[in-house]
Amino acid sequence: MSNLPSFVETAVLQKPFEITMEKRALPVVGPNDVLIKVMAVGVCGSDVHYYEHGKIGRYVVEKPLVLGHECAGEVVAVGDKVKNIKLGDRVAIEPGVTCGTCDMCKAGRYNLCPDVQFMATPPVDGAFAQYVKHREDFVYVIPDELSYEEAALIEPFSVGLHAMKRANVQPGATVAIMGMGPVGLLTVVAAKSYGASKIIVGDVEDVRLEAALKLGATHAIQVKSEDAIQAIGKYTNGAGVDFAFETAGNGSALKTSLNALKRGGTLAVIGLPQESATPLNIPTIVDNEVNILGIFRYANTYETAIRILTSGQFNIGLLVTDQYPLAETKEALEQARTNKSKSLKVMVYPNGQ
Amino acid sequence: MSNLPSFVETAVLQKPFEITMEKRALPVVGPNDVLIKVMAVGVCGSDVHYYEHGKIGRYVVEKPLVLGHECAGEVVAVGDKVKNIKLGDRVAIEPGVTCGTCDMCKAGRYNLCPDVQFMATPPVDGAFAQYVKHREDFVYVIPDELSYEEAALIEPFSVGLHAMKRANVQPGATVAIMGMGPVGLLTVVAAKSYGASKIIVGDVEDVRLEAALKLGATHAIQVKSEDAIQAIGKYTNGAGVDFAFETAGNGSALKTSLNALKRGGTLAVIGLPQESATPLNIPTIVDNEVNILGIFRYANTYETAIRILTSGQFNIGLLVTDQYPLAETKEALEQARTNKSKSLKVMVYPNGQ
Amino acid sequence: MSNLPSFVETAVLQKPFEITMEKRALPVVGPNDVLIKVMAVGVCGSDVHYYEHGKIGRYVVEKPLVLGHECAGEVVAVGDKVKNIKLGDRVAIEPGVTCGTCDMCKAGRYNLCPDVQFMATPPVDGAFAQYVKHREDFVYVIPDELSYEEAALIEPFSVGLHAMKRANVQPGATVAIMGMGPVGLLTVVAAKSYGASKIIVGDVEDVRLEAALKLGATHAIQVKSEDAIQAIGKYTNGAGVDFAFETAGNGSALKTSLNALKRGGTLAVIGLPQESATPLNIPTIVDNEVNILGIFRYANTYETAIRILTSGQFNIGLLVTDQYPLAETKEALEQARTNKSKSLKVMVYPNGQ
Amino acid sequence: MSNLPSFVETAVLQKPFEITMEKRALPVVGPNDVLIKVMAVGVCGSDVHYYEHGKIGRYVVEKPLVLGHECAGEVVAVGDKVKNIKLGDRVAIEPGVTCGTCDMCKAGRYNLCPDVQFMATPPVDGAFAQYVKHREDFVYVIPDELSYEEAALIEPFSVGLHAMKRANVQPGATVAIMGMGPVGLLTVVAAKSYGASKIIVGDVEDVRLEAALKLGATHAIQVKSEDAIQAIGKYTNGAGVDFAFETAGNGSALKTSLNALKRGGTLAVIGLPQESATPLNIPTIVDNEVNILGIFRYANTYETAIRILTSGQFNIGLLVTDQYPLAETKEALEQARTNKSKSLKVMVYPNGQ
Repeated sequence: MSNLPSFVETAVLQKPFEITMEKRALPVVGPNDVLIKVMAVGVCGSDVHYYEHGKIGRYVVEKPLVLGHECAGEVVAVGDKVKNIKLGDRVAIEPGVTCGTCDMCKAGRYNLCPDVQFMATPPVDGAFAQYVKHREDFVYVIPDELSYEEAALIEPFSVGLHAMKRANVQPGATVAIMGMGPVGLLTVVAAKSYGASKIIVGDVEDVRLEAALKLGATHAIQVKSEDAIQAIGKYTNGAGVDFAFETAGNGSALKTSLNALKRGGTLAVIGLPQESATPLNIPTIVDNEVNILGIFRYANTYETAIRILTSGQFNIGLLVTDQYPLAETKEALEQARTNKSKSLKVMVYPNGQ
Repeated sequence: MSNLPSFVETAVLQKPFEITMEKRALPVVGPNDVLIKVMAVGVCGSDVHYYEHGKIGRYVVEKPLVLGHECAGEVVAVGDKVKNIKLGDRVAIEPGVTCGTCDMCKAGRYNLCPDVQFMATPPVDGAFAQYVKHREDFVYVIPDELSYEEAALIEPFSVGLHAMKRANVQPGATVAIMGMGPVGLLTVVAAKSYGASKIIVGDVEDVRLEAALKLGATHAIQVKSEDAIQAIGKYTNGAGVDFAFETAGNGSALKTSLNALKRGGTLAVIGLPQESATPLNIPTIVDNEVNILGIFRYANTYETAIRILTSGQFNIGLLVTDQYPLAETKEALEQARTNKSKSLKVMVYPNGQ
Repeated sequence: MSNLPSFVETAVLQKPFEITMEKRALPVVGPNDVLIKVMAVGVCGSDVHYYEHGKIGRYVVEKPLVLGHECAGEVVAVGDKVKNIKLGDRVAIEPGVTCGTCDMCKAGRYNLCPDVQFMATPPVDGAFAQYVKHREDFVYVIPDELSYEEAALIEPFSVGLHAMKRANVQPGATVAIMGMGPVGLLTVVAAKSYGASKIIVGDVEDVRLEAALKLGATHAIQVKSEDAIQAIGKYTNGAGVDFAFETAGNGSALKTSLNALKRGGTLAVIGLPQESATPLNIPTIVDNEVNILGIFRYANTYETAIRILTSGQFNIGLLVTDQYPLAETKEALEQARTNKSKSLKVMVYPNGQ
Repeated sequence: MSNLPSFVETAVLQKPFEITMEKRALPVVGPNDVLIKVMAVGVCGSDVHYYEHGKIGRYVVEKPLVLGHECAGEVVAVGDKVKNIKLGDRVAIEPGVTCGTCDMCKAGRYNLCPDVQFMATPPVDGAFAQYVKHREDFVYVIPDELSYEEAALIEPFSVGLHAMKRANVQPGATVAIMGMGPVGLLTVVAAKSYGASKIIVGDVEDVRLEAALKLGATHAIQVKSEDAIQAIGKYTNGAGVDFAFETAGNGSALKTSLNALKRGGTLAVIGLPQESATPLNIPTIVDNEVNILGIFRYANTYETAIRILTSGQFNIGLLVTDQYPLAETKEALEQARTNKSKSLKVMVYPNGQ
């Protein structure tokens, strides 16, 4: 560990639209922690939202905050009690460190732990920094076959996997996925991993629909010009889909997702609409005995994700459309915010590419 | 079978608000059918709705229809191939006869069978008649301990049991149930059967809340004078409930049900609101990872219901507040419709009490 | 239907080891039946067992019986009430026709229907015949991409799919499968369809292990020369597998399957050992909280199987190693029985190849 | 905390059959621990086994060990970070403290945690002592309605609850339970809590069968004089039971449990037989599509158990047949070992009754 710096370059959100570079002390590694040289960090919609608005719902940025929670890197130090991780390991970081002792943790639903320390959610600092420390049990060794970018993408991929598991998708299923942002695209990969035989996707951007088809979607609907319900009807011989996933976060896509379902179907809601209330047709839900499942983050997905991505079946690297060094974190956030060049995922490299 | 009449007194809905008594030919019993002397028929909200409006959603009464589908009676004739039912058996009737060959039937979700023949749903006649025939496999022998009224109540009780099973309620669970009409009251019995340790109910009618407490509810909320969410908070030490059941069919109760839940909780929607769309807060559903389950009728509940009610633990007979002979079916429907005397369940007796 | 013959060539088991060709009357098609020109029939281990011993357990061949139940063909006549199948359709046949009215059928576990009429199980005739009739709802249209041989293989494939579903295999899982006969090989395909990332197989025949690797197995154990438990340990970094499937039908493979499991793992038992009782270590089952699941046939698998096989991912045609015309059904059974040339699946073509 | 003693009376197993009283230092309470004045400790079969043999399977008593893990008491000190427990609380102790960070803990199956510290399992000391410390999250406040004895019995009761949950017992189910030792008796209570309508029990001791009937069993089989399978057939009208629970730990009871099942039924194995291997009929398991579930301890049962027992429905206090002060721990173990007076549960009171 002799070559570690005393200070760490860090990009800090001071207030909305203001990111400054700071030198912060190298994190002190506790007995169960590992220190990670951060190699790739994806920019998430929530990072952009904090950057722009300084808060998300009840989470308010009240003091300077380091953003970034989709990350991977190399292990450069380990605590005394660390057992499964060693120096030099290439690792993916699961950003939410849970208490392990509450009812939710004990029941296997640790994504609902009330005491979770989640990177880049105030007041917990994130990964737009050269080094971060993290508790060993939320750090996962990745094989050589996986790049750091792919490892960083495990975080949004996990949302899709968690949704598939909660929805209990089975091989041969028909699936509709609304919204082809990064989470939607990785939900396509998740659906494919679960053996879905028809994956019908919808979005307003052609570039996203094309990416979806490359990742395994079987039918793409340009919702600006097509009637999504009609199209889904056509692609399923009038039957509707077994499962729908809403990742777009708008009421119209939610309505489409609900109406796309077969009787007895399941709708998983991933996206957060801006509206305070979204009108839903309750008789449709009751008469068709629909299940609607809220999806919050994920639990127990990282090992699965690593195995799936290591198979080499999915070229998720195509999501990385924009690349920035740490010093240009603000530019990365602006790129994601304004999305002038039709970005999919913007990636920041705190220690060079 | 020598004593059977050639003609059967039948109460027929001719058009909204018009019920006439007709003599109809005794039903011809097919090889798999049994003929049942109807002893008790409950009046359901759907009967009242057809009586008043001539339709429910896409189901329209286009020719004279016999209403009534919550029924029980005595077997007076059996078809050639009937194996498990014999003359003289006292039986409960499950009103929906399914195809047994479609995907839904084969998957064990026969309540979603598209070809179901459901009593008192146009164009299938119901049970406001002295005799009805029914396919053997939807007829269940009841023990002497059960009265015909209790056997007729198995139908609405089944809705509650189906909801409990779909929601996967476990012993010790905390439950809120909104709406204490007959389905709500029998959902209390279902929750108790599933071992719920706290059953908090809400309604606007004191008489219904009192009935709920007699059937096993642990806390009653008079929603005209109390804030239901506050009360549920108080009764659960601020935790919220594990499960909520909406049986009232209105948007306000639905909102209460959703907000009453613990993180990770489940809401089962049984009631059908009049509104074409009910506004729901999607971030609440996503952040709390709520499950919302539509409940449509029931499947595989009758044997369970008979076992539970035979235990003698529950005095569901208290639901029967109003009693009419077949000739006064119109009066029975009017009583249920106007509910002047705070009825719970109105019962019709086609062959005398 | 004018071109249909009055008589049908049929291979009939008269007594053990005696198969004769008979001309039988063309089956009379009932209102819900379809008549199928049989194009391919796989020889199953149970066919061989009836051929050799005249019985399997409590099922005894007491009068001449037509064997063969893994079959596919072309629809040449349909009954009056048939709705979803039409003349000329290429179809796979699910051989067990269930009652649709018993508790098991209604609960979605129709494979346990006590009144099932299962082809080639005494006294129900099977498919070694030019034409067979079958109830519409157990006949499935296949797309052009599927050959009749592949469609016939859906039957044994279904066993593997049913086992995966019951075991609740998830993407990324590690799986061991003992026994690489046709059912074992198709269980490899099923495991792959469910997203298993490691599929470790064991058998005594190299030709079968090679086929397994071609179908998606990741590691093959030649159990004559290797210690299976050691090998599984090596291939899973000492962890053991999440799921094990025993298809070989012998006690030694069963013991291996049980000991191959991780703590909390699941063992699905498909094979039927000859021994009257197999010794199992109960403390292993209890301390490791193992689930052991008996697998009997399948339910609700055909549509899924068709979708999976239509994807073109799996070359299951490689299982068909031996081909016979109907007139040589005895030779086909002998080939499967003696297996001199290391057959995988022996196929009979009642109407030519 | 000023009144706490510096030394704690403790009963220590020195070697088989040798228990000595020692004064040990009062445990030092860590930040997340509570210190508990032990009021009641049940003697478990495993305590007796260590006392008699000095080991159970791979767990060997290599240095002096304090036995006792079914316990309850009063909180007399709390660590700095303790949040939910306070001085004076009456509490039940869940004896296994898990790591909270391994795969099994994170998946909600913490009973399979490889790093669990389980009281009275070498080398972790148990509760035959005046005071013990325990991590807060495995300590549960009990209401006044529960006695310390009842709270101590939550531990064996938890095994039954865990078995019910894993087996997915539903209201109205028929259940057979073999073995009416304390775990078997509390499994009766668990089955009743899950709404089982028929609970058929078997044992060789009349006193145990009588206790079972008092706790909710509906039928008792004296297996010395009755054929258990015949009796179960009679009590289920020939149908067999939906669920069987083996708690006796012998091969004969296991065989009975398996053969008592309906087709599609589930057998939960709780008892550990002495035999190294128990012969099971595999064709029975496969043809009947039976599930066999190993049951190892429990997870997430304590809150549920407290709610169930607080309802006052079950008089589990009748299990406590023998009572000893701490100084007579050896006598308590001898009583349980030799069981001369037909004990059910022997209880030790480290701080007087």
